[in-house]
Parts: sequence; C-alpha cells; structure tokens
Amino acid sequence: MKERISTLLKREPQAEFVVAEGWVRTKRDSKNVCFLEVNDGSCLKGLQVVIDKEQLSDASILNEITTGCSVICKGPIVSSAGGNQAVEMATTDVQVVGPCPVDTYPLQKKRHSIEYLREIAHLRARTNLFGAVARVRNTLSYAVHTFFQEHGFSYVNTPIIGASDCEGAGEQFLVTTLDLDNIPRNEQGQIDYSKDFFGRQAFLTVSGQLEGETYAMALKNIYTFGPTFRAENSNTKRHLSEFWMVEPEMAFCTLEGNMEVAEAFLKYLFKTVLEECAEDMAFFSKFVQSGVQETLKAIVETPFAHLTYTEAIEELSKHNDTFEFPVSWGSDLQSEHEKFLTEVVCKRPVIVTDYPKEIKAFYMKLNEDGKTVRGMDVLVPRLGEIIGGSERESDLATLTKRMEELGLNLDDYWWYLDLRRFGTVPHAGFGLGFERLVQYVTGIANIRDVIPYPRAPKLADF
Amino acid sequence: MKERISTLLKREPQAEFVVAEGWVRTKRDSKNVCFLEVNDGSCLKGLQVVIDKEQLSDASILNEITTGCSVICKGPIVSSAGGNQAVEMATTDVQVVGPCPVDTYPLQKKRHSIEYLREIAHLRARTNLFGAVARVRNTLSYAVHTFFQEHGFSYVNTPIIGASDCEGAGEQFLVTTLDLDNIPRNEQGQIDYSKDFFGRQAFLTVSGQLEGETYAMALKNIYTFGPTFRAENSNTKRHLSEFWMVEPEMAFCTLEGNMEVAEAFLKYLFKTVLEECAEDMAFFSKFVQSGVQETLKAIVETPFAHLTYTEAIEELSKHNDTFEFPVSWGSDLQSEHEKFLTEVVCKRPVIVTDYPKEIKAFYMKLNEDGKTVRGMDVLVPRLGEIIGGSERESDLATLTKRMEELGLNLDDYWWYLDLRRFGTVPHAGFGLGFERLVQYVTGIANIRDVIPYPRAPKLADF
Repeated sequence: MKERISTLLKREPQAEFVVAEGWVRTKRDSKNVCFLEVNDGSCLKGLQVVIDKEQLSDASILNEITTGCSVICKGPIVSSAGGNQAVEMATTDVQVVGPCPVDTYPLQKKRHSIEYLREIAHLRARTNLFGAVARVRNTLSYAVHTFFQEHGFSYVNTPIIGASDCEGAGEQFLVTTLDLDNIPRNEQGQIDYSKDFFGRQAFLTVSGQLEGETYAMALKNIYTFGPTFRAENSNTKRHLSEFWMVEPEMAFCTLEGNMEVAEAFLKYLFKTVLEECAEDMAFFSKFVQSGVQETLKAIVETPFAHLTYTEAIEELSKHNDTFEFPVSWGSDLQSEHEKFLTEVVCKRPVIVTDYPKEIKAFYMKLNEDGKTVRGMDVLVPRLGEIIGGSERESDLATLTKRMEELGLNLDDYWWYLDLRRFGTVPHAGFGLGFERLVQYVTGIANIRDVIPYPRAPKLADF
Repeated sequence: MKERISTLLKREPQAEFVVAEGWVRTKRDSKNVCFLEVNDGSCLKGLQVVIDKEQLSDASILNEITTGCSVICKGPIVSSAGGNQAVEMATTDVQVVGPCPVDTYPLQKKRHSIEYLREIAHLRARTNLFGAVARVRNTLSYAVHTFFQEHGFSYVNTPIIGASDCEGAGEQFLVTTLDLDNIPRNEQGQIDYSKDFFGRQAFLTVSGQLEGETYAMALKNIYTFGPTFRAENSNTKRHLSEFWMVEPEMAFCTLEGNMEVAEAFLKYLFKTVLEECAEDMAFFSKFVQSGVQETLKAIVETPFAHLTYTEAIEELSKHNDTFEFPVSWGSDLQSEHEKFLTEVVCKRPVIVTDYPKEIKAFYMKLNEDGKTVRGMDVLVPRLGEIIGGSERESDLATLTKRMEELGLNLDDYWWYLDLRRFGTVPHAGFGLGFERLVQYVTGIANIRDVIPYPRAPKLADF
C-alpha cells in the first residue's frame, strides 16, 4: 500500500518521487507558488504541498483545487522553508480526483461550532477536532484489546439481544418483528410474544456481565467489548442510548485482584494514548481542555488511593456544607462527592469499596457485616467514577436470598445460579464505559462528540 | 497474576512449589494415588495433578473432589511417568473451592451430544470442544484487529441502531420503547413513530458499510467489527439473527487493491490461528473435520485465482448437468457453483469479480459495459463465499441513477450521496461474517456452536 502522510512527514528530504493522496484542507496562493495542506487522516498535521505555478503544464487545475477536494500529488520531499514543518512536497504533478464545490461544501476553512458539526456527522471526521477524536478512540480501542490479550484474557462476544436485565433496573429497548398494526393477542387479550421473532419478549442488552461470568467460569479470565443500550430519557452531555462497554471478568479473583487489574488497565490505556497520540493530545490540551495530558500523566505515575465507603462518608460529611447534597451513611455518592474525594481528599485517583448493599446491584458479594458489599468504584480527578465493579457473590444461598429480597424472579436466572451450584469460585470484574473514557482522555465536553453517530432520545440520524 | 496452566505445562521439572487453579475435568483413583486433570481454559490440555493419598493430612477431601469442582493445588512440577504429558504436579495440598454435585451436574465425564450442550450454553465452554472454539474465536478476533492496526486502518464503531437499510433488502428488527398496548397514532390512524424513543422508526443495523464509508473519506482506511442483525426466518446451520461482521473500507482504492487486502487478510488470519492455536486445531482436525489444518495451510501458501463472473459462468455451464441449479449468464451463484469453482475449476481460493448489476447491491461501481459491477466474492474450498465486497460507485450521477432505478428514496441517503459531492475518491471494501469464519476454521457444522449465545428464530435463551 502507498505511504500515508504520517509516514511522509517523517522522511528526510529526498529527490525520489513519492505519492501523497488525501483531501485539501487549505489552499494559499502567492504569485509563483500555491500552497496546499493535504490531509489523509493518518495524523493531525497535513503535508504541505508546494506547487510551482510556472512549471504547471495546465494552470487551470489550480481553479479546481478547493477546500475538500481529493488530490493525488507526486513529487520529491524537500526541506521546508516555512517554520511549521520540517519537510514538504515540491510538485508540478497534482491530480484532482474528486472536486468539492466551494459554494455548497458544508465544511469551510473557518472554524465551525461543534453543534453545527454534529449535524453533519458524516463529514465531521474531516476536521482537525474529530479526526483527532477518531484516532484517539482507535488507539484506546486497540489498547483495550492489547492489554487484556497480553494478560491472558479471552475476548468473548456476549449477546446483544436477550431477555435478561442485568442490573434489574434501567429501561430497555424492545426488539421485535411483530406487525404493530396487527399485534397478536392471547385469549386473555395480552400481547402474544410467543408469536414474535424470538418466541418471547426480547430486549437490547444493558450489560454483558452475567453471560461474561459464565465464560470466566470456563476460561478463567475473559473480557467483553461491545455495544450496550439504555432507553433512559436522559438528554445530557454524559448519556448515550447506545454506547460501548468494556467488561473484564476474572475467576479465582477477589476484590483485591480486581482493583489491581483496574488500576493497571487504566494506567496502560493512558500511557498508550500519551505515547501514541502525542500530537492529538497536544491539540486537545491546547483547544479543548487545558492540562488534559498532565492529568493523565499524573494518573499513570501515581499509586491509586483506597477508601472504604464508610471512610469516604466520614471524610465527606466533614464538608457537608460545601455540597449541594449533604451525605450520611447510606447516601449514594454523587458526582460532586466523587470529585471531592479524588481532587481534594486524596489528590489522586481513589478506589472506593464496600458500599451499602442497598445502593448496589444484587450480584455483589456480601461482606461479613451483612450490610456492605464488595463493590468498587474507581474515581479520577475532573470526572469522578470511571470504572465500577465488584467481587461477585459466589455463594448460592447468599445470592438466592439477596435476589429474593429484591423480588427478582429466580427462574429467569437459573443459568446464572448454576455457576454457584457447579464449581463456584471467587470471581470479580468491572465495567468501563468506553465513551466516558474517550471523553475523559480528550476533554471533550459532550459525549455525543466522541462516538461517530450518537444515539440519544430523538436522535438516530445517519 | 498467578500462572495459567498453559504456562505451567511448559515448565521444566522444579522443586519449587507452584499454584494451579482450575476445574477438575476427570479424577482417577488407584490404590495410593489419585490423578486429577485440572483445566483452566488456557489450553485444551489440563494439568495432571497427582495426589499422594498416604501423605494427605485429611483424606476426606478426596470425596469432595468430583468432576466440575473448582480446586487450588500447590506443589512441585515433576516429570510425568505417564505418556500423555511431559510434566505433572505432585501434591498433597489440594483445596476444593467450590464443590460440584455429581448427581445434578449437567456435564458428566462422558461425551455429550452437541445438541445437548447447546441447551446448557452457560456451561459448554467447560468442555474440550467449546473451550477450543472459544480460544480460536478469541485468537481470530485479535488477529482481525492486529492485521488492520498494523496496516494503518482505524477501528470505527458504526451505529447499531439506525434508520437505513444498507442493502435495500433484508428484514430488520424494529427497536422501540412504544407501549404496544397503547400505540400512539396520528390523525390518519397510522402509528405515530414521532412519539417513539428516537422520534422515528428505528432498526438494528444490517451492515456498518455506509457509515464506514463516511469515515474512510476522512481517515482513508477504516474497519468496523461489530454485531449486525437479520430478522430473516432462516432456521439453518449457516444463519444467525445476530452475528459479528468485519468491514474494512479503503479510500483511494479500486477493486484491485480490495482483492489484495482481502487475500492478505485471510492469509494472515489462517496463519495466525495455525500458529497460535496449534493444539486446538489438531483437536478439530481429529474430532470435528478431518484435514481442516491442511485446508488452511494450503490457502496460506497459494496465490488466489481470479475469474470474472462471465468466465466463471462459462466454466460452470460446461458442467450444468452436475448442478441442481444449472447456470446461465445472469444467474446468481449458489453454494454448489461456488464450491465447484474453487474445488474443481481452480483447485484453490478464487476471487470472482464483475457480476451482473442485477444480482448485486446498489452501491457497487458500474463497469463501462453498463451491465456489470465491480463486485467481488472470495470463494474458498469446502465453503464457497467467505468474503463479499466491491469497489463502490464514486460518481454522483451514476449512483443516483442506479438508486432511482431501484426505487430507493434518495432523501434517506443524502449523507451517503454527499460523499460523492464533496471530494469523492475511488474506494472499496468488503465484509467478512465472523461466525462463518470461525465455522470455516474449526470445521464446526452448525453456526450456533461458534458464538457463545446464538440468536435465531425462537431462540434468545440466556
């Protein structure tokens, strides 16, 4: 394959001709030369292509070259006289592959608002900002796989369509092929889902954890990385209806091992993105969120703090006058409290553990006190919770009792309970919302800008 | 993290104690010793653990050890007297972590039918067969990412929920939060989807290609790897309602480049799995499909053949008497024809190109003959089509005309057409059904056995 612009930019000057393909970002004319910035998405920076007008066989091509057109340029790599780049291409051989009409192209040279770009999501990856987001997202995705593969975890694809609701909460999307104009009903007049495609009511998954656990009980260490869904009517900067989630699950592992993996995982992700996306990260620091690189660097270099929920409440309640929602034992932690713990109390990432069972999911392991569970939330400065996880309840009787207390239908979970019947082991895992991670790394304020085509209430364009 | 059994099996004998954690697959008793095979999913083979009964502090533990129980064993690694393994663990320190009642455990020592195991999909990864499938699937998944990452492709997450139907065919699942007992209707009495969650009718995606193309027009080379859905009522060994698809898309790339990448990609996948899953592949060859390794090796080592559709029809029509469906120019190729081309005519993988436009999708580039399009199918022995792709129509007028001929609503595709309005370039890509790939590699007959939790008509268990 031909070389990308990121590679060409690293070349020493050379007389031998190379080929650069991409889209024109900017064009500047002077009397004798025309400067193009050609970008192919391989890096933030474009290749400066300098066209010697006087040597052009057909000068009319200069009129065809406009912002957004696609070009193929051939020429030598030369030292650049300008201060913005080490090398550039000198050429008289430019071919316009696809023109781009100036009057109708939605992306002009000027800076567009992020809201406007959201409306042309099919073109926005052509901008500096969204190109950088796409590269960082890609680097983080691959780093997720690399981290787990190198640590002996197997990637498992848990089902997207299913019948169970992992958290026992959270509104779900119905998946159906019923003719809504002619819904089949049983003798009692209820909707007859046995006539639906799957022979039952089916929903989009909210988590792959429960199915993930079944594979951890065979392969020991597994992870999922796939789309999950919430039908919540939340129009916020932090919620999507469709988002990607990473969920490792480890057998023969308690909360302590879980915390170690979560810390090593986050550090690996941040280290990788700082190293491999240095140019993009500098861009985010300059134009999106000042200091975003320093935040990540500090996390990479600092051992995480540890607090139990009870200790956290003790610390927080000393400052109850500063919070919108004062806390006491039993309160769920809000974002303001999480940020306070990591930014003020610990001044570094902190893992809070052992939450009251009432505010956590049914599957978390009950502590001996009978009141708290072995849940953990990893809190980071500027954001609050980035990872949530737990050791799972591995004892059949305790789990059954807890599910009954919560009114869950045990028959729906027969296979999940089987894991505790047959060769049960201590096991633990956590979940990382991938878009929240990309938001955190880039400093982008609205989560709709870190996924190519966001889905939210009233939003399913493209 | 503690060592996995795959690592322990590679050790030289050593006096130093190591720890092995896993599940007991088999237990054999003799007078003085008890032999366990302990498996942790890291490899097909288990670690043989030899318990010296006379040295046990508490012999009652031997009764607790049954097939399926989870154990932690500590001891030295010693040379094995038996012929089945180089090393084993000698121990008197075995802890049963989770027992497994003999009378109710659904997985007994005997061989179970694959149909029975499908009903206990939450446990089947604990068998040799499904453990091997899981490892091969994992290796192939990561190889997909590694191949594209090493070739400068960006991973893009295209949307799962959307409004467009890429192929203009294929039945789709509706995604809704409407109350089906109380469906909102407009003044004409039609269902009012503006009241639905997304403010419109929304479906599960059948392909990420169209959105993938938008990112290729910014990042040049991209790939997707995510779930796709078909609501077809096909109860066959080759169809799933939910399956994972890999879809690369390359800008500045024609059909020729597309074929090169497809060939290199398949060879990379097969080479990787042969190298990294040699033990599992030998298992498939012995118990599932004889010669499966040789088939893959031959593909890795052989340059693919090339035929146009017209040439293929010429060859095939000579043998029309041997086919259930005789062919003539214009016929769609069936599996029998595809297999004949690759197994008999070419005796190696073959890429068939330039199909009649009538049997291919609207977005494929029209050839100058006006009759054929730049589609390609990669056919492999024993299966037929494994990859389908094309160069895309990059000319606005030609594409528009074709879509109008097919009665597609251009307004629905405004953003897709924009790619041809603004800086269009030759581009191409293909799709690989991931489960079909895993089926091919393992030789597993039914596609429901190569995904953890298959979804099909009337099937959404777990």
